[in-house]
Amino acid sequence: MKSTRIVLASRPIGMPEQENFRTETVELEPPKPGQALLQTLYLSLDPYMRGRMSDAPSYAPPVEVDQTMCGGTVSQVLESTDPALRSGDIVLGYGGWQTHSVEWVAGLQKLDPALAPLTTALGVLGMPGLTAYSGLLTIGKPQPGETVVVAAATGPVGATVGQIAKIKGARAVGIAGGPEKVALLRERFGFDAAIDHRAPDFAEQLAAATPDGIDVYFENVGGAVFDAVLPRLNQYARIPVCGLIANYNDTDLPPGPDRLPLIMSAILRRSLTVRGFIVSEFMNQAAEFIPAAAQWLAEGKLTYLEDVVDGLDHTVESFQGLLTGKNRGKLVIKVSE
Amino acid sequence: MKSTRIVLASRPIGMPEQENFRTETVELEPPKPGQALLQTLYLSLDPYMRGRMSDAPSYAPPVEVDQTMCGGTVSQVLESTDPALRSGDIVLGYGGWQTHSVEWVAGLQKLDPALAPLTTALGVLGMPGLTAYSGLLTIGKPQPGETVVVAAATGPVGATVGQIAKIKGARAVGIAGGPEKVALLRERFGFDAAIDHRAPDFAEQLAAATPDGIDVYFENVGGAVFDAVLPRLNQYARIPVCGLIANYNDTDLPPGPDRLPLIMSAILRRSLTVRGFIVSEFMNQAAEFIPAAAQWLAEGKLTYLEDVVDGLDHTVESFQGLLTGKNRGKLVIKVSE
Repeated sequence: MKSTRIVLASRPIGMPEQENFRTETVELEPPKPGQALLQTLYLSLDPYMRGRMSDAPSYAPPVEVDQTMCGGTVSQVLESTDPALRSGDIVLGYGGWQTHSVEWVAGLQKLDPALAPLTTALGVLGMPGLTAYSGLLTIGKPQPGETVVVAAATGPVGATVGQIAKIKGARAVGIAGGPEKVALLRERFGFDAAIDHRAPDFAEQLAAATPDGIDVYFENVGGAVFDAVLPRLNQYARIPVCGLIANYNDTDLPPGPDRLPLIMSAILRRSLTVRGFIVSEFMNQAAEFIPAAAQWLAEGKLTYLEDVVDGLDHTVESFQGLLTGKNRGKLVIKVSE
Repeated sequence: MKSTRIVLASRPIGMPEQENFRTETVELEPPKPGQALLQTLYLSLDPYMRGRMSDAPSYAPPVEVDQTMCGGTVSQVLESTDPALRSGDIVLGYGGWQTHSVEWVAGLQKLDPALAPLTTALGVLGMPGLTAYSGLLTIGKPQPGETVVVAAATGPVGATVGQIAKIKGARAVGIAGGPEKVALLRERFGFDAAIDHRAPDFAEQLAAATPDGIDVYFENVGGAVFDAVLPRLNQYARIPVCGLIANYNDTDLPPGPDRLPLIMSAILRRSLTVRGFIVSEFMNQAAEFIPAAAQWLAEGKLTYLEDVVDGLDHTVESFQGLLTGKNRGKLVIKVSE
């Protein structure tokens, strides 16, 4: 079986470009005992992948040059050596940027196509949803009446954070780029307030939208949004940090002054909790999260937005758009029917 | 009754100078019902007082200009209108930088002179001790075999942090300024390793002293020590932040580059917890802390060091020395016999 795949040709400096990748078609090894041959249906594109393209120290090893770019996938089983899976089954795996893959059955999770659309396993019911759920509830701990702020709020993590905050009785303030996304925040996701971070008076708008300050800031973007949030944080505010997409392409630190003492002083004076996390820390919460989120979906308390792009050959440009905020919702590449 | 007191004459910019203070003798109002007239025996000097001299936003309101500088005190009751206290009783209060004070009895805590030397109520058994205990155990949560690092480690907070870390089975690495203090860390307080932050190869020494990285960094100094600690922090390290004495006299942020993205990136990549706190948050732990610490003192597992300076007229210069690391242990002014 042949697979068409996109490999990392060289490590990008700053924004990844087409030249950093190479598309090639290779013959796959047949599955060994315990493995299955899969055809990729959907490939998830997520900001963390930018980190895997670099060899700076991070929480996970980088993708090696000349290796297939990593990524979560929903795939159909073509051939299985393990009785746990049969040809035709649909599975969640980690096949990467390619049309076919051979994976260990033990690392695959069989999906129930009747539970929800298959793409949700990569978004609201998958890793982004769990990121939102665990980071918000375990670290952010929003209390009824408190104010929760999240950016990239039409994205799969941000939108889920805002809606779970509402379910828990908190006030949700969403930040996104551009009037179309801001309208989505209010109309589709039910945020109590929605702000455009591209507005020239963004900081003033954020202050007006948080009259009682901010109790939880779910940090998934960094940069100018954090700068505007910092002075609004209340005593004992909690800041789960799961992403800093604004900085991912930076090759140097920004010019001074050095604000490290400023943030440490704010942490001290206002008894802030700043806590980084990677969703893998909370994998043991998936068993409570998935049924809870599926029920919220069924009840209409939780909704989601997807940008599905047709064809693996659009993957690199779609990923570039993800880093610049072009997509509105969860970005998924439809690799095959 | 007359009281000689030191008032804040003007707000210091940078290091507090003698001219920022004024000594005056005033006639005290007689105690109202519910109040007591006290003679100050010991006055505590602590880094947080620098914050009270400024009117920048902080966790507590500033001392007003022309008002007596605040401070914890051990005092003898001269006259009480409340039967809960009798003349001659010794109390812990908040009389400030003066020889006599009138305070509400409800805000005073009667001390047992048989439990421990009176000055310990201002140090190892008082606010600094509780700061160490609660910050280390509630936020730092050191596990047996983990590495705990603390600076200003001959001081009342740092020395207690290190010794409680040892009691809990962790490895304690202490940082202090100058060879005399470093020797004290090893010989008197039993730190597993002791490092001079003034050494030109301080960062290399810290790396050598933390071969397994750092799991808990109890932050009470900031500045160059934090810079050396940051690259050594392990995945899931905890950083209780209770003081940043290195920055207290800063009037401007240091020059660039801006390291705010650097610290946020470290928090994310290594799942760090950075948590500011003020000891008042943990006052409800005093009831468990004081008997525990008194027992550790009696068993010889916990020891302390005090610098007692004779005479209120040495208060300002002693406080300046506190900000530049002149004292070795808990700094106390002996105000009267």
